[in-house]
Amino acid sequence: MKFTLEKTDSQSQARAGQIQTDHGTIQTPIFMPVGTAGTVKAVHQRELKEDIQAQIILGNTYHLYLRPGLDILEKAGGLHQFNGWDRPILTDSGGYQVFSLAGTRKIKEEGVTFKSHIDGSKHVFSPEGVMDIQRSIGADIIMAFDECTPYPCEYGYARNSMEMTHRWLDRCINRFDSTEGKYGYSQTLFPIVQGSVYKDLRKQSAEFIASRNREGNAIGGLSVGEPAEMMYEMTEEVTAILPRDKPRYLMGVGTPANILECIALGVDMFDCVMPTRNARNGMLFTSEGIINIRNEKWKDDFSSIDPAIGNYASTFYSKAYLRHLTISKEILAAQIASIHNLAFYLWLVGQAREHILAGDFAVWKDQMVKKVSTRL
Amino acid sequence: MKFTLEKTDSQSQARAGQIQTDHGTIQTPIFMPVGTAGTVKAVHQRELKEDIQAQIILGNTYHLYLRPGLDILEKAGGLHQFNGWDRPILTDSGGYQVFSLAGTRKIKEEGVTFKSHIDGSKHVFSPEGVMDIQRSIGADIIMAFDECTPYPCEYGYARNSMEMTHRWLDRCINRFDSTEGKYGYSQTLFPIVQGSVYKDLRKQSAEFIASRNREGNAIGGLSVGEPAEMMYEMTEEVTAILPRDKPRYLMGVGTPANILECIALGVDMFDCVMPTRNARNGMLFTSEGIINIRNEKWKDDFSSIDPAIGNYASTFYSKAYLRHLTISKEILAAQIASIHNLAFYLWLVGQAREHILAGDFAVWKDQMVKKVSTRL
Ligand SMILES: [Zn+2]
Ligand SMILES: [Zn+2]
Repeated sequence: MKFTLEKTDSQSQARAGQIQTDHGTIQTPIFMPVGTAGTVKAVHQRELKEDIQAQIILGNTYHLYLRPGLDILEKAGGLHQFNGWDRPILTDSGGYQVFSLAGTRKIKEEGVTFKSHIDGSKHVFSPEGVMDIQRSIGADIIMAFDECTPYPCEYGYARNSMEMTHRWLDRCINRFDSTEGKYGYSQTLFPIVQGSVYKDLRKQSAEFIASRNREGNAIGGLSVGEPAEMMYEMTEEVTAILPRDKPRYLMGVGTPANILECIALGVDMFDCVMPTRNARNGMLFTSEGIINIRNEKWKDDFSSIDPAIGNYASTFYSKAYLRHLTISKEILAAQIASIHNLAFYLWLVGQAREHILAGDFAVWKDQMVKKVSTRL
Repeated sequence: MKFTLEKTDSQSQARAGQIQTDHGTIQTPIFMPVGTAGTVKAVHQRELKEDIQAQIILGNTYHLYLRPGLDILEKAGGLHQFNGWDRPILTDSGGYQVFSLAGTRKIKEEGVTFKSHIDGSKHVFSPEGVMDIQRSIGADIIMAFDECTPYPCEYGYARNSMEMTHRWLDRCINRFDSTEGKYGYSQTLFPIVQGSVYKDLRKQSAEFIASRNREGNAIGGLSVGEPAEMMYEMTEEVTAILPRDKPRYLMGVGTPANILECIALGVDMFDCVMPTRNARNGMLFTSEGIINIRNEKWKDDFSSIDPAIGNYASTFYSKAYLRHLTISKEILAAQIASIHNLAFYLWLVGQAREHILAGDFAVWKDQMVKKVSTRL
């Protein structure tokens, strides 16, 4: 993997760059659609490429490990071959899902014991094991095994957890660096900054992560319920420390406004389930603001969903038709809204990139944050 | 509407023809995907055209009348404008759905009183009213309001019902012929042969329907639970009487084998929810036979779903991937399987047409019936 920083904004920390992988180039800042179980829900692979113009998608290690399982993925030749997505893929470490299984998991220094949500079977995720699993899945970018602390989180717990995450990171690095990719292309490992909402811990963690000198770095443990201002504060603290010549990935963020604000703080990569999850509930993010498509006001609005975005679903279908499908619980509603929301997110980061390159990002960002936060 | 009979098979009653409508030409024999509420479930309009190569789709009067409702459809400029499907549409009369609401509907000579399955509100469908509703929906081909008798059905009930359907037909014709299309293109009304599984009633009904001399004719009340042989027998009885120079539409049929057999009996048009409904349950119809994609045997079969069909979904995705999506209850499973099954049905009738034109339909049909009925 190779990161090229093309431009840094003069009025903010916003950056435009390029990440080269063996599955192609990613232009940053970028949003990465979440493809939990090897599928971005309700979206065809062809639509991801042509309509959404996704440049990289996520996979979830926890879900893929349980189903279809590593034997199938290895037989297929990795996740790219299995689902037919030939552009870059990033996998999380499974930690976030496993720690969410409250009551059925046990955290120890060695690793985490948990029960499958599918059949109750018992499994262990360790730093070493999770590296091996991500080798088998075959993502281009893989994530270190960390503990994502909840919000709120007491200081003592946050510090101990962060320290364990750092020890786990060194175990991840040892394992990763002593193994090879299984499918003939290279993979890279991103470590993750933790430290909850405590500035001193965030600083300490960012310095530790930076010292490991990997090809890219991630910020975890945010967007877990804390106020947005607190998330911005922590992000700013961390991006000030993480190396400028490596891409920075803020995990699980967020709303269109969150993304624009965090681009301004120097973040390059984002992912979030919000565009697809909210799409399935009838909430649309558009270039003019937020739409609840179930609202009666759209029932005879035959205008396109959002012609500014320019893709098939956003221009071909009308608001009134999408409202009808949503009210009627038709599958096509989820399909249209998912394509639209993802296309909008990719359009938004693409616009941000253009404005960074043009040198007028800060002004544009402030206008756009207001616009995309408006409820129509 | 204009029907041109291009060729009749010398070994069977199979026919190849063309139906011209103001929304384009339909090549027969044809299968019409069912778009209940203005959407063919889980399929984009673009996919219907480009991947499935659908030439005409159905809409359900009962569903569209309740939701989005006629006010919205009229404001949109009809169903074509509302859902963006610019090729021909056929609407049923709503009778089938209304009669299925056992317990909540009352049948009288005047019409049928029923309660909405959505909100329990009371409505009346009469022959005249259903013509007006279908004028508002704006389908190219609209159906007469008939009573579709269940199976089994006593002779006396079947005869009385058929006679009422005939009286209703004349009321439909009077209303239809004294009104005009609302959107600047022409519509045509197909009457429906009833008579349950009684040959004398079917003969009587076919003669009555033929005497009305409409531009096309339909056969209803079959594929409602009777043995396939009985369905074929009734179809043969009726197609022998219905005029050769008008298209014949066998409603609600059926499996791939049913369709091939009924093409051989002189049927030109088919519709059925089976390809889409079964797709959502993981049942695939392929050029090699029937697949239950949930079956363990497909878990590491990385071959295409059915490369013979040639469209995106059938060639791009593997059986193993589709199995994984189906087991994981992912929406994309329904999307892929629906496109595939419909593309297969369209491929099948297209092949039938080619073999009719080439003069070797009968031999091909017997081989193909065996193939498509095989469980893989
Ligand atoms: Zn999120
Ligand atoms: Zn059917």
